[in-house]
Amino acid sequence: MRDRYKRLIALTGYLLAHPRTQWSLTELSATLQVAKSTLSEDLMFIKDILESAGQGTVVTQVGAQGGVVYLPALDRKRAALALETWAHRLAEPDRLTADGFLYMTDLLFEPRLVEPLGELLAAPFRDQAVDAVATVETKGIPLALACAKALGTDVVLIRRDSRLSEGSALSINYLSGSSRRIQSMSLARRALHRGSQVLFVDDFMKAGGTARAATDLLGEFGAHVVGAGVLVSTAEPLSKLISKFWSLLEWDEALAKVVPSVWAQDLCGTGEGDSHG
Amino acid sequence: MRDRYKRLIALTGYLLAHPRTQWSLTELSATLQVAKSTLSEDLMFIKDILESAGQGTVVTQVGAQGGVVYLPALDRKRAALALETWAHRLAEPDRLTADGFLYMTDLLFEPRLVEPLGELLAAPFRDQAVDAVATVETKGIPLALACAKALGTDVVLIRRDSRLSEGSALSINYLSGSSRRIQSMSLARRALHRGSQVLFVDDFMKAGGTARAATDLLGEFGAHVVGAGVLVSTAEPLSKLISKFWSLLEWDEALAKVVPSVWAQDLCGTGEGDSHG
Repeated sequence: MRDRYKRLIALTGYLLAHPRTQWSLTELSATLQVAKSTLSEDLMFIKDILESAGQGTVVTQVGAQGGVVYLPALDRKRAALALETWAHRLAEPDRLTADGFLYMTDLLFEPRLVEPLGELLAAPFRDQAVDAVATVETKGIPLALACAKALGTDVVLIRRDSRLSEGSALSINYLSGSSRRIQSMSLARRALHRGSQVLFVDDFMKAGGTARAATDLLGEFGAHVVGAGVLVSTAEPLSKLISKFWSLLEWDEALAKVVPSVWAQDLCGTGEGDSHG
Repeated sequence: MRDRYKRLIALTGYLLAHPRTQWSLTELSATLQVAKSTLSEDLMFIKDILESAGQGTVVTQVGAQGGVVYLPALDRKRAALALETWAHRLAEPDRLTADGFLYMTDLLFEPRLVEPLGELLAAPFRDQAVDAVATVETKGIPLALACAKALGTDVVLIRRDSRLSEGSALSINYLSGSSRRIQSMSLARRALHRGSQVLFVDDFMKAGGTARAATDLLGEFGAHVVGAGVLVSTAEPLSKLISKFWSLLEWDEALAKVVPSVWAQDLCGTGEGDSHG
């Protein structure tokens, strides 16, 4: 009995510590010194308990090349808490710089605040084939990484300038909606396979010029952009240069207020009883 | 009996899915519908099993504000495998660009390849108070984030140019060893508290000019840089502009070869029987 307890805990530990990582049944049965049939029973048992606790699921492929993978569920409670923390901290009096920008670089680089939001942005695409998450350097990178992790994929990094260290690249110029300046972005030719399904992620969207330019650039690589997910979008302009976008927080500059979007609240299941009013 | 199995698995799940996250004993006992005394027994049991399986440990603080935290162990096997994969993939024939740079942006943005290495870089500082991990944008960001996560801290982002969106900033110019050009870097004044202990992380080091300049810049904030951890350092020049640095991989340009460093192999326990010869 005690042995089974030990085995179940160690096994749960292996799986949960490495989400979306394939474990070989042969190796696991050797590590835990148990027959494969017993291991399979244990895995079924763990799967049932995790599922009923809303902690995700375990997928087992049987056979000689058999493996097992733990797929975490979206942690709605943690995501809702992260959204509340963001709204709260972005309301701090010194967040607005003298030039009217919302300072959020510090928060964007706190893994605990960003990872649950990356999972939220990934949620609509969990059952869709997304080959990569693309972002334009720099501040959206942690969010893009968290989103890519939740989708079991990688980040494609669009640079502001083309870099010698990345070989030949494709560049485009565009008019940035927020700065009213010509900006450029660039992607290494080897960075993306043709025909990739790509989710674009960024920290901030005003008019949507950057997301639009990124969509055009990715299009030059034969990629299809399935949508754009951003952390904060501004209330104005209401109409953006890109149609399929989702934002987690909305910044109303006139009211000087950042609130979780209806979309994000619905995803978290906090649409009704939320305290942001 | 079956109830205890369920509770232990769900509890292990909560802890392992959120490393370094404090769980309230009161909330856990409510969620699992069990007395605090039973919960404490369960936690002791889980702690013993995780420790003997080399999966880390569980730290419990008793009392009214009591909490429990799961602290993962360094996964040496996973780290060793990641290092081998890096060495192998950096040996791909088209990795060297026409200008003599080693292309590794794609690998740096694969979470599975980078996270174990961030944990390795963090390993020497696990028992030391490190307040932040600093990096200069852009390519070292995923590694810095992984390292910060392993230390339970955040990333401080040094920019290449000062940004309006970050308010007033401090900038310095320096001579980059690899490009022989004057470069600059900049840090927002609000980004760091005085007296912080900071670990500097970057993807690449040749002469060490960037690490040295970052150390100087961080010094202007009254921070103490405890060391610099990099993914790849070049064999030449042997002597770098910064004394306390660790690198995971070494690139011998003359031999056109990237191998795990002795330091990294020792950390992984693969120093003797390694296959990199």
